[in-house]
Amino acid sequence: MTSGANADSKTTVALDVMSGDDSPRSRIRAAVKALKRYSSLHLLLVGDRQLIEGYLSDIDYSDRSRYTLIHANKTVAMHDKPSLALRGKKDSSMWKVLELVSTGEAQACVSAGNTGALMAMGRYVLKTFAGIDRPAIAASVPTVNGSTLLMDMGANVDCTSMHLYQFAIMGAQLAASVHGVESPKVALLNIGTEEMKGNEQVRLAHHLLLEKLEVQQGLDYIGFVEGHDIFSSRADVIVCDGFAGNVALKTGEGVANLVRDGLRSIFQRSLLNRFLYFLISPLLKELNRKIDPVLHNGASLLGLQGIVIKSHGGADEEGFYRAICQAVQEAQNDVPAKIAQEVEERLL
Amino acid sequence: MTSGANADSKTTVALDVMSGDDSPRSRIRAAVKALKRYSSLHLLLVGDRQLIEGYLSDIDYSDRSRYTLIHANKTVAMHDKPSLALRGKKDSSMWKVLELVSTGEAQACVSAGNTGALMAMGRYVLKTFAGIDRPAIAASVPTVNGSTLLMDMGANVDCTSMHLYQFAIMGAQLAASVHGVESPKVALLNIGTEEMKGNEQVRLAHHLLLEKLEVQQGLDYIGFVEGHDIFSSRADVIVCDGFAGNVALKTGEGVANLVRDGLRSIFQRSLLNRFLYFLISPLLKELNRKIDPVLHNGASLLGLQGIVIKSHGGADEEGFYRAICQAVQEAQNDVPAKIAQEVEERLL
Repeated sequence: MTSGANADSKTTVALDVMSGDDSPRSRIRAAVKALKRYSSLHLLLVGDRQLIEGYLSDIDYSDRSRYTLIHANKTVAMHDKPSLALRGKKDSSMWKVLELVSTGEAQACVSAGNTGALMAMGRYVLKTFAGIDRPAIAASVPTVNGSTLLMDMGANVDCTSMHLYQFAIMGAQLAASVHGVESPKVALLNIGTEEMKGNEQVRLAHHLLLEKLEVQQGLDYIGFVEGHDIFSSRADVIVCDGFAGNVALKTGEGVANLVRDGLRSIFQRSLLNRFLYFLISPLLKELNRKIDPVLHNGASLLGLQGIVIKSHGGADEEGFYRAICQAVQEAQNDVPAKIAQEVEERLL
Repeated sequence: MTSGANADSKTTVALDVMSGDDSPRSRIRAAVKALKRYSSLHLLLVGDRQLIEGYLSDIDYSDRSRYTLIHANKTVAMHDKPSLALRGKKDSSMWKVLELVSTGEAQACVSAGNTGALMAMGRYVLKTFAGIDRPAIAASVPTVNGSTLLMDMGANVDCTSMHLYQFAIMGAQLAASVHGVESPKVALLNIGTEEMKGNEQVRLAHHLLLEKLEVQQGLDYIGFVEGHDIFSSRADVIVCDGFAGNVALKTGEGVANLVRDGLRSIFQRSLLNRFLYFLISPLLKELNRKIDPVLHNGASLLGLQGIVIKSHGGADEEGFYRAICQAVQEAQNDVPAKIAQEVEERLL
């Protein structure tokens, strides 16, 4: 199930082509882009076969040996209740991609669908590792000098200190194996940096991390950080409950939009301003590329016995392509096996 | 204690001149600026008398009838434990400004000091209204079309649904009386907008607000909003626990810094870029003015039987001046009396 593949051997990734707000056509285009980037990649395209075949024939890509079509009758809708989807949609494209990972036919899967349903089905089909109570969603966010992993992003609204501790172990392993950080700096998100600050869960998790990780290798616990540190490159992994993580991520998007809209409205006001905007637009585009969340699309459901990548529901072709790349990198670095080993050493 | 003053009669505000990271000199300069703006304002300058007199003599402001010096031996430090400050610093400038509000000698007070200590002393000296379990910190944040009140900002890391409900009532009253919003749109911060989303406290608070406010006037409950809605002008008041509120505010600051630093580094790279920056800098300054948190400095400790304004610890002269203005506006609009009335009607 967690059998890895190095960069040279074949990597197989299953795509939930029907998922998210964008059309399956854009998912297919993203898939072809990924096939062109990774010569060792094979894709399992899961969804309405007729629809997919139609889109594929529109695109100038003929190497049928690089992908396999797998038909699925149903699609999990964005508004489906996770518990109902779990019971009623076992023949959906979302369920099938998870099953393909569970049987070992794929090393990883990607879906842009309903997060709650993906999490519920993921737990049911793939199970968590022994020692891990709950999977968590780890997302990469842009920072001054690169990126930081923020987790949990919303799968677990209430977390005990032990959950936060488990997230820290898993996040550090992802940062080390995919982002290549040797001894990842791990922090807890809090509302101040003093020991007395925060709620009980966070304060207890702080002591757990201090006690258990002091003498261990491979993880550098740096204590509490605050909201403004998320984008400052202070830590490689920032751990929090799913409520705080989700609020932080979306608040960040909100401020970025506020600034972008503010710039646009000021620069559109007069002919001179519009001309100035024209002059600086290549530089603004450069900044945008640096902090664009699309480039960081593809969150990891850590703790499951298999690689599941959640793309943003609203992701476009470029965003979904990035999520596929994330899946390939995790598969090539055999992340679940490494997490399993960490969990065994530190938690069991 | 909550005796109001209309715009024509005298308003007296007590300032904790020793508080925060900036020097007392900058607090005094902010005080003089406020005196020049409000002709009916009288200030009680509380702190080290000799120090204050020295700074006042440096400044070209001679109308001694507009302010009174009140000596205080001690200062609450930013790192003081709230419980220890409460027991050991009854002769501090922070304690004295609260006492001046409690005795009615001032209608409001402002401090840039230690938030935890200010909250603990405020509860002890001023007490909360009957019907209000805990005071909350309400901060104004910039949005696309103006500002939104976000609360709680960190005073209460754990909140029950009833606390959140109480915050909503108080926040709406502040928005109505100071910001002049007729029927404020109030929302709960959550990680999705569907009923099933979020933790139990938030879901229960949602039902409390739906049930109790349906037929009442003066508050328009609009349901759940997400992090990106904070800056979108969707709601006039956004309610959450202090952990989420603090994370949201600081994350917003972090993204704003990321964008500012990103712009600076790109525009400094070459002579041409620096020239372009020179051309657009008036426009960037305009944007900065629009979203600058300094202009929104001055958070309200709502629920106390008196007006207490918390300035950011790092606030400079302009920031502290804005916090004094917030105190004057709340005093002139008699906010505590209005909150007391709301609480009596809706909560008792």
